[in-house]
Amino acid sequence: MISEITTESLWADLRKVRETAPLIHNITNYVVMNNTANALLAVGASPVMAHAQEEVEEMVAIASALVINIGTLSQDWIAAMALAMTAATEKGIPIIFDPVGSGATSYRTRICRELLTVNPSIIRGNASEIMSLVDASIQTKGVDSGADVSLAEQAALNLAHHYSCVVVVSGAIDLVTDGHKKIAVPHGHAMMSRVTGLGCTATALIGAFSAINTDYFTAAVHAMALMGICGEMAAKEASGPASLQLNLIDTFYNIEQNHIAAYLKD
Amino acid sequence: MISEITTESLWADLRKVRETAPLIHNITNYVVMNNTANALLAVGASPVMAHAQEEVEEMVAIASALVINIGTLSQDWIAAMALAMTAATEKGIPIIFDPVGSGATSYRTRICRELLTVNPSIIRGNASEIMSLVDASIQTKGVDSGADVSLAEQAALNLAHHYSCVVVVSGAIDLVTDGHKKIAVPHGHAMMSRVTGLGCTATALIGAFSAINTDYFTAAVHAMALMGICGEMAAKEASGPASLQLNLIDTFYNIEQNHIAAYLKD
Amino acid sequence: MISEITTESLWADLRKVRETAPLIHNITNYVVMNNTANALLAVGASPVMAHAQEEVEEMVAIASALVINIGTLSQDWIAAMALAMTAATEKGIPIIFDPVGSGATSYRTRICRELLTVNPSIIRGNASEIMSLVDASIQTKGVDSGADVSLAEQAALNLAHHYSCVVVVSGAIDLVTDGHKKIAVPHGHAMMSRVTGLGCTATALIGAFSAINTDYFTAAVHAMALMGICGEMAAKEASGPASLQLNLIDTFYNIEQNHIAAYLKD
Repeated sequence: MISEITTESLWADLRKVRETAPLIHNITNYVVMNNTANALLAVGASPVMAHAQEEVEEMVAIASALVINIGTLSQDWIAAMALAMTAATEKGIPIIFDPVGSGATSYRTRICRELLTVNPSIIRGNASEIMSLVDASIQTKGVDSGADVSLAEQAALNLAHHYSCVVVVSGAIDLVTDGHKKIAVPHGHAMMSRVTGLGCTATALIGAFSAINTDYFTAAVHAMALMGICGEMAAKEASGPASLQLNLIDTFYNIEQNHIAAYLKD
Repeated sequence: MISEITTESLWADLRKVRETAPLIHNITNYVVMNNTANALLAVGASPVMAHAQEEVEEMVAIASALVINIGTLSQDWIAAMALAMTAATEKGIPIIFDPVGSGATSYRTRICRELLTVNPSIIRGNASEIMSLVDASIQTKGVDSGADVSLAEQAALNLAHHYSCVVVVSGAIDLVTDGHKKIAVPHGHAMMSRVTGLGCTATALIGAFSAINTDYFTAAVHAMALMGICGEMAAKEASGPASLQLNLIDTFYNIEQNHIAAYLKD
Repeated sequence: MISEITTESLWADLRKVRETAPLIHNITNYVVMNNTANALLAVGASPVMAHAQEEVEEMVAIASALVINIGTLSQDWIAAMALAMTAATEKGIPIIFDPVGSGATSYRTRICRELLTVNPSIIRGNASEIMSLVDASIQTKGVDSGADVSLAEQAALNLAHHYSCVVVVSGAIDLVTDGHKKIAVPHGHAMMSRVTGLGCTATALIGAFSAINTDYFTAAVHAMALMGICGEMAAKEASGPASLQLNLIDTFYNIEQNHIAAYLKD
């Protein structure tokens, strides 16, 4: 399946992000805001973080994608997320939804299911989070999950079918599906799980790619492949998780077509 | 105009910051809180972040400057900002105001104009933000703006006149004016625009310098010159935006008189 | 007293953290959330940040320790802290309390005293913060304090006695006491005080060690010793506070028994 990601198409989309600098509106969690903004800037997009109910609809009106991440949710923010998602649906820009910690508490699982009624375009989570969106009895440990991606494949297919959206399950090998097609993205590095919020960064990158490519399945595949390739490149020079995080941002900024080709071997 | 910034005066003020470690009270946005605190600590100041309405007036009472940044604003925070600004005015310490994203939504523009009625001492923004404070019809794209500083010169002069304050317009060449005098600060590096929140860092540095120099025009010039020089030094060793951010903080900590002299060439 | 920390016992506990990856529930401040999460991940624990009153009790139910840090407090968060602390007490997991800025405003001092009525297992603060918990007339400057640890020794003993808890006073030489035993932890580096939130990181590490060692005195000593040793190792290769912060996280990830032995010289 890997042969479906080509250097040419990934590189074309990355160039488009860099040339058009799409505005990505993020309503995300406190832990990752800085890293998410820096990842988006480094890859060439233009991030904005805004969560006040008074302004989210207006911010959506000037944005090219909306990223919703419930990592540190509370009632005020959820109301703003719902407003922004509705505005994004009406405008027709992609909504990328990250159900951080769904399954860890019944509150998170319930809120995720409520927000899903405003159809997101793309959902990205780890295996436990994706499974909990389909089966509320799934209990996960906090926001990190060791559950294998393959365990969530059926849930991902069901979810994609049910909401007519693209679903990404992150793990050692990522799975991307629209309910019909599916593709495995094998890139990345084990140390990435020791850096907080790299899943959230992946979600934000999907925002950047879906802002410039209306084929959301391909956009999600490109974002996950770029994330994995840059992660591998960053890990090579890293002496631990903090230098990995630093190198990753620098790699988003520096990566060129020949680096991508070296990993995709197409 | 550049000749007005002298190594001697900038160095004297930087030494004063390092020797007195003024307490800078920040009510700022979630994205930059960590970097802002680290920048202030590295330059020699003592940062505190506090936004509860129950305590901001008491925090102002022990602070030497108040930095207000609306980057991720919401109603509770705005009320706290207004309380803190009033307390700072009564105490006579400088208020530095950063209208992040003013012009991006009408909510931000309106809140900025409301907060401006409590006269800040110094306002720092990019060209679009500064223009939106004078002409509410200015629409900007998110929080990053490519608008040229020169476009905002008249707005900056008007703003400085109207509020009897110092206005700083950030860009490739920064403009600082008190409505009468103006000065261009040419330092900095293009890659700085790919790091989130360096404008907010500049605003916080103005806080540190205005805490120890009641001539706010000179304080703002010193802060912007230090920001630009350290940015250039940091960029030399950087392989991307994340290493630039890291080097910048380290440079704030390490910079000595001879480095400043090498850039100012006075 | 230093001889009480042995390489063998510290290493055994660190291995236990790495092998069991205990879930540490943090209700902490905006400034340090990212660094705290990364420190916990690097040392081998699993962090979760959650503050909604609707979910904190359920999150405590799956956690192995609860870290409460009032750095950027506001009313909603305090209510969530109280709920979580009560749930943690009932469950019998350790509560580690960080009274950031207690003494800086009467609001902070009052809230700390209220939260202390739900007995925390371990309290960590700097000298001023610890003293303010005993004597509300103590006034500190912001969140950084130059007050000497020795000044707070009596307050620490009284506090530990009164609440039957372990108290840690951070400084150049840390003091750990349970009201009877006391121990000095001499490790660390002066530049650490120029990095924001390393006190908060120490508090979170105490969370990780107390999650796997029910002898909270020993757990606190181990966490503070690891913090200090890693800080010294990180400082050796650092060219400023930002590279110190980066190296510190990488060192948490990489440190092995022989490094610890080299510092403890036991």
